[in-house]
Amino acid sequence: MTNRDRFLRACRCQPVDRPPIWLMRQAGRVLPEYRALKEKHSFLELVRTPEWAMEVTLQPIRRFDFDAAILFSDILVIPEALGQPYEFVEGGGIEMEPLRTAAEIDALDGAAVRERLDYVPRALRLIKEALGGRTALIGFAGSPWTLANFMLQGGGAKEYVKAKALFYSDRALFDHLLRKLTDAVTEYLQMQIEAGAEAVQLFDSLGGLTTDHVFRDASARWMAEIIRALNDRVPVIVFSKGTHGNWNDLVESGAQIVGVDWTVRLSEVRARLPETVGVQGNLDPFLLTTTPEIVEAEAKLLLREMHGSLGHIFNLGHGVPPTAKLENVERLVNTVRGFV
Amino acid sequence: MTNRDRFLRACRCQPVDRPPIWLMRQAGRVLPEYRALKEKHSFLELVRTPEWAMEVTLQPIRRFDFDAAILFSDILVIPEALGQPYEFVEGGGIEMEPLRTAAEIDALDGAAVRERLDYVPRALRLIKEALGGRTALIGFAGSPWTLANFMLQGGGAKEYVKAKALFYSDRALFDHLLRKLTDAVTEYLQMQIEAGAEAVQLFDSLGGLTTDHVFRDASARWMAEIIRALNDRVPVIVFSKGTHGNWNDLVESGAQIVGVDWTVRLSEVRARLPETVGVQGNLDPFLLTTTPEIVEAEAKLLLREMHGSLGHIFNLGHGVPPTAKLENVERLVNTVRGFV
Repeated sequence: MTNRDRFLRACRCQPVDRPPIWLMRQAGRVLPEYRALKEKHSFLELVRTPEWAMEVTLQPIRRFDFDAAILFSDILVIPEALGQPYEFVEGGGIEMEPLRTAAEIDALDGAAVRERLDYVPRALRLIKEALGGRTALIGFAGSPWTLANFMLQGGGAKEYVKAKALFYSDRALFDHLLRKLTDAVTEYLQMQIEAGAEAVQLFDSLGGLTTDHVFRDASARWMAEIIRALNDRVPVIVFSKGTHGNWNDLVESGAQIVGVDWTVRLSEVRARLPETVGVQGNLDPFLLTTTPEIVEAEAKLLLREMHGSLGHIFNLGHGVPPTAKLENVERLVNTVRGFV
Repeated sequence: MTNRDRFLRACRCQPVDRPPIWLMRQAGRVLPEYRALKEKHSFLELVRTPEWAMEVTLQPIRRFDFDAAILFSDILVIPEALGQPYEFVEGGGIEMEPLRTAAEIDALDGAAVRERLDYVPRALRLIKEALGGRTALIGFAGSPWTLANFMLQGGGAKEYVKAKALFYSDRALFDHLLRKLTDAVTEYLQMQIEAGAEAVQLFDSLGGLTTDHVFRDASARWMAEIIRALNDRVPVIVFSKGTHGNWNDLVESGAQIVGVDWTVRLSEVRARLPETVGVQGNLDPFLLTTTPEIVEAEAKLLLREMHGSLGHIFNLGHGVPPTAKLENVERLVNTVRGFV
């Protein structure tokens, strides 16, 4: 069984020899070979140059032989393609003029998504070829709700309040924005699938900001539309952080795999989902800052807890933290790989 | 049925005419009469002067006639009583030297808790007398886990990592700290009950940082010890924010009421708990920044959802936000009060 087969079989809840593993943010600043590149190129230069995006995508595969590679990119390329540019401030943080008026929302233009994001399918084709069918290739996008939060807030925030405020104060305008984002994300993921992505993940990282019925109207229904439009061409993973009251909504979104954060017991979530829907997660990312012994012990707890469950993709409950230690990532991968 | 009776009956899951209501952070900066006081006195001066603590506790009762008053104080009075002082920086934020070494943890001294926090029972006696048996009086403390996070981090943080790090790296020292905090919180709550508190709430606001089995060892077991020591003298409310995978642990803590944040459906939590354990919550605090019409509509949704359930104390899913509008608080209270 190749890594690719293992990952794709788990996505469809088919039997595998051991859970496949990849990590959210497996590429990037935790790797010295990435940091070396970053001394010469900006983050956005790496994202926008297919050869560099390929290189950064492959770095963690070379080092750790994960079962899946995920495109090195950023969720904010969608607002950018719609006409709302952004920059990364060195030292952390995003600089982005927030959307402030109905006219600014109305001016977002989806017509150029394919053209402006042309570097993404080019990168994916290079990566696909380099992986040679041995490692699965995952594409991704931000969920419309999560993107709307960044776009209205103007980047990251301590508290995301603008999208919620718009949801309650002007539902028609909120829906207008989410409609544009849904269409753009759909087209973007279709491009990725055409270029070779074998699974796609929707990052609904801010899904947990809302209460249950608001989550349905503000986030889940738009993800469901996207997934319906993709028409089961590839498995879709929905990682909706903090939405512990909404397992049914996530299932109804049509996701093949539900990503789960580290604060809930994965086997309990597994038991609440239909057998045809898998789970991805959910080791506490913080553990990668501790020691190999602790990582191994905690990973084994999770592996034993999930033993015998079909459709488990091993991952963290959120992205690799910047302070993660390489020896911990290595021990994690070896622990999962050696688990029988 | 007085407000006090309504609240205390709901705490014991007995029938009431309508859900009692109080709001976390109902006293404080959202009220103009509080802001007027704050122009002349610092936050800690208000906390430490029984007459002022009484005044601030009563302000929201006078204005909104809540079913329960909660002592105006701060969870960090416990570290202070143990020998780790702090200050509020005007404009936001806490200034506190973090605990850094085993010697510093060992030096925390619980012997003076009763004496150093003597102003608290004095305030409670004044408040109790002023309430005249018409409004219930709630005391509170931070949970040992939540306090440990603040103490090791040195105040609030974007990411709380120090307590988690200590938990994994030196469990004996972690337990040593949590033991001291558990003993101090127990004594502090006993003092409050002796002085007239008719219910107490443990604020486990950082409970949701950890995964399920870690939550048990890092937070729930210490709260269970405290609740056991209080020996059912008054109902205990445990508000453990974000711990959606741990309803059983919260029930096993011995809490009479489980506080629930706004991101999960309250009726589903209610259905997962034994009939003898009530729930408190869980309107999205953000709604108080919108309009009276929206507040009323959303409060009615929650009231209808919970209609017929015993043991529901109406509250927000977290504290009143600083940008809440008074007319929204007023509409909320009137909506709950008018609900039949």
